[in-house]
Amino acid sequence: MAIQSMMKKMKPRIIALLTDFGGKDYFVASLKAVILSINPRVEIVDISHEVEAYNRLEAAFLLKAVAPYFPQGTIFLAVVDPGVGSDRKIILVKGKKHFFTGPDNGLLIPAAEEEGLIEVRELRAEKYFLPSWSRTFEGRDKMAPAVAWLSRGVPFESFGPIAASFEKLVFPEPSFLPLEIRAEVIHSDRFGNLITSIPVQPFLDWFKKKKESALILSSRKRRWPLQYVPAFAYGLSHQPLILPGSSGFMEIGWKEASAASHLRIRPGDKITIKMVKSKKRLNKNVGK
Amino acid sequence: MAIQSMMKKMKPRIIALLTDFGGKDYFVASLKAVILSINPRVEIVDISHEVEAYNRLEAAFLLKAVAPYFPQGTIFLAVVDPGVGSDRKIILVKGKKHFFTGPDNGLLIPAAEEEGLIEVRELRAEKYFLPSWSRTFEGRDKMAPAVAWLSRGVPFESFGPIAASFEKLVFPEPSFLPLEIRAEVIHSDRFGNLITSIPVQPFLDWFKKKKESALILSSRKRRWPLQYVPAFAYGLSHQPLILPGSSGFMEIGWKEASAASHLRIRPGDKITIKMVKSKKRLNKNVGK
Amino acid sequence: MAIQSMMKKMKPRIIALLTDFGGKDYFVASLKAVILSINPRVEIVDISHEVEAYNRLEAAFLLKAVAPYFPQGTIFLAVVDPGVGSDRKIILVKGKKHFFTGPDNGLLIPAAEEEGLIEVRELRAEKYFLPSWSRTFEGRDKMAPAVAWLSRGVPFESFGPIAASFEKLVFPEPSFLPLEIRAEVIHSDRFGNLITSIPVQPFLDWFKKKKESALILSSRKRRWPLQYVPAFAYGLSHQPLILPGSSGFMEIGWKEASAASHLRIRPGDKITIKMVKSKKRLNKNVGK
Repeated sequence: MAIQSMMKKMKPRIIALLTDFGGKDYFVASLKAVILSINPRVEIVDISHEVEAYNRLEAAFLLKAVAPYFPQGTIFLAVVDPGVGSDRKIILVKGKKHFFTGPDNGLLIPAAEEEGLIEVRELRAEKYFLPSWSRTFEGRDKMAPAVAWLSRGVPFESFGPIAASFEKLVFPEPSFLPLEIRAEVIHSDRFGNLITSIPVQPFLDWFKKKKESALILSSRKRRWPLQYVPAFAYGLSHQPLILPGSSGFMEIGWKEASAASHLRIRPGDKITIKMVKSKKRLNKNVGK
Repeated sequence: MAIQSMMKKMKPRIIALLTDFGGKDYFVASLKAVILSINPRVEIVDISHEVEAYNRLEAAFLLKAVAPYFPQGTIFLAVVDPGVGSDRKIILVKGKKHFFTGPDNGLLIPAAEEEGLIEVRELRAEKYFLPSWSRTFEGRDKMAPAVAWLSRGVPFESFGPIAASFEKLVFPEPSFLPLEIRAEVIHSDRFGNLITSIPVQPFLDWFKKKKESALILSSRKRRWPLQYVPAFAYGLSHQPLILPGSSGFMEIGWKEASAASHLRIRPGDKITIKMVKSKKRLNKNVGK
Repeated sequence: MAIQSMMKKMKPRIIALLTDFGGKDYFVASLKAVILSINPRVEIVDISHEVEAYNRLEAAFLLKAVAPYFPQGTIFLAVVDPGVGSDRKIILVKGKKHFFTGPDNGLLIPAAEEEGLIEVRELRAEKYFLPSWSRTFEGRDKMAPAVAWLSRGVPFESFGPIAASFEKLVFPEPSFLPLEIRAEVIHSDRFGNLITSIPVQPFLDWFKKKKESALILSSRKRRWPLQYVPAFAYGLSHQPLILPGSSGFMEIGWKEASAASHLRIRPGDKITIKMVKSKKRLNKNVGK
């Protein structure tokens, strides 16, 4: 019995970090040092620290894409925080499966709402901060100790009052018309794949009715034929492909190359995907 | 006894990751989240995620250079996978000291053959995949759960049948002539050191016979005097050095600077190293 | 009792790594593989591997900024080592709170002196090296095994004799005049904030006497009005800000943008901060 209870206590709990701190500074290691000083047994996992500086939307997308794969009880600390040192709140969010902590600027909310958001609290209990804290690095001085204490079993309710309100952040919603989707690019990944704001299942429902049709991608007054494929390996070379992405959104890619470079499309750009009746018609159109 | 057996069970096993996923996306963290959901006690070590996109040869070189230093039983998951989603196989390789998992495109083989390759199996047992898996991210949906189950003690034989065949990947072999070596650059490291395809010991055997001779490096119709040194600290400034590299291959470097930049030589480039009788002769030649 | 003693033995000890090895090679993973082969229970934390190649001053700054946050007993392995393979010493430093290991080129000393330097030893005991060690990668072959054995409890005194002397590295000292500070930029962080050589408390003492005064920043014959703020959120846009940095030094920043890019100031550049009596006077001066 003693051993079993000991085993349970030693059960590692995970703190996962997502920031725009980059890899060349002492910032990320400071978070880890503070966390391990308070809870030496916690497992720390890096999601990414290469979020574009100040880009909350990108961070929210990454967090929403990866959070479902983490074990029950994982605590996410996500810091993209242009308002650091101001009176913007720091919040703790309890979801159905995980905890989320970070600045109150909306970046935590899409991931929490995806699994079911239960409660949002303000981080106010100063006894869980570092003894002397700066106003320029609240990630290290307030948030890191808070998540470390949370991982040690301090109850969620102890960190502060329920937030009267909190910031939301909404991903751009695509418009589905019978023969057209209007959407936006929300992320460009390492390979230059363009993650769109079009969720996979609605796209497949829209597309499956007319599988013999051809697709045309347009953006910034330029256009290209677009091939739907289930995976890159099935695509033609030398033209954009659209395929179901691993994040739950449709992606525009290029076989063993960067769609972002070939198409010169970037996150934030509007795109339109049109359906045309026959492939003959498509070629004619594009040839114009 | 109970405690000892518990200790043994808790013995951490290592999963080491090598990919071309980069650091700015959710890809690497997805692998880790899946692995830790299945085996919370495993130790995950990053080798690199900055392999050039789709560059199997570079990944194979890195894996071969680092694998011998990892403890017995380490499981390597290496994903550089332009064929993702196609019918290319996923394989598990048992070597004399380690396990290797990844796409069947040759990248695992040089490291496994270095230590002694025992058996190659196809990853087929769907019960070890994530319940719903995509065709665009088999690293997360098939390979990560497989290595996690392997680290928990599921027998190697359970993951699928012995592979009838598998892809090989061969490093370029240098040609040794009495007064000349023809070789290739296989990697340029962070410092701009050029790792050649020339193994250290054969080079030293070739070179030691004529230690008073001078060396000339040529590539792409240009040439430079080349100084052999046992370590950078012994080299002259302002000229290329050749020295035994820590990966087991000869490296061409530059003292506190980038040989790659100074020489404008890149991975894939052919190089020739010539021996000339006297240093006088060398200077005359180079002066032409 | 047996369990308690077991728990104590399992207490994780931390080895924290700081290098200029970059993320694209096998270098960092080699250190980790060697360490985990010797001590599978140690926790390895990356500080950064993106120190500019050969830049000891940057590494010393990062180490000094982050070390105080790590738990008692943490072992730092810091390798920025242009002299690798030469007869420069490798040293182990015992501070009041931590251990530090690396090449004898000064990079460890500011962090160790900050907490109180107790003793410096030369790493000489070859029985703690890898059996066959190269001269090009002493980090992997000598230092990594040494810190791993140290983390397993081998006494500090076992690794070699007390160093008769060791290299120092001194951060540039600012000059405080009544109406002027002359200083240097020692680091540019991920956001383009310029960390100066001006410690926070002396600056605040200098500045608080004349809070109604205005500041002018000059560097390389250019100058700008400079606003003191306690945190970015309180700053004006479109001009440089000076604020207390989280590393203990004053930082010059720009609201949600890169001061380094806007001002074209880099690490190593000299800067002057002047106090002028009235804001009116400031504007006049700057208008000239």
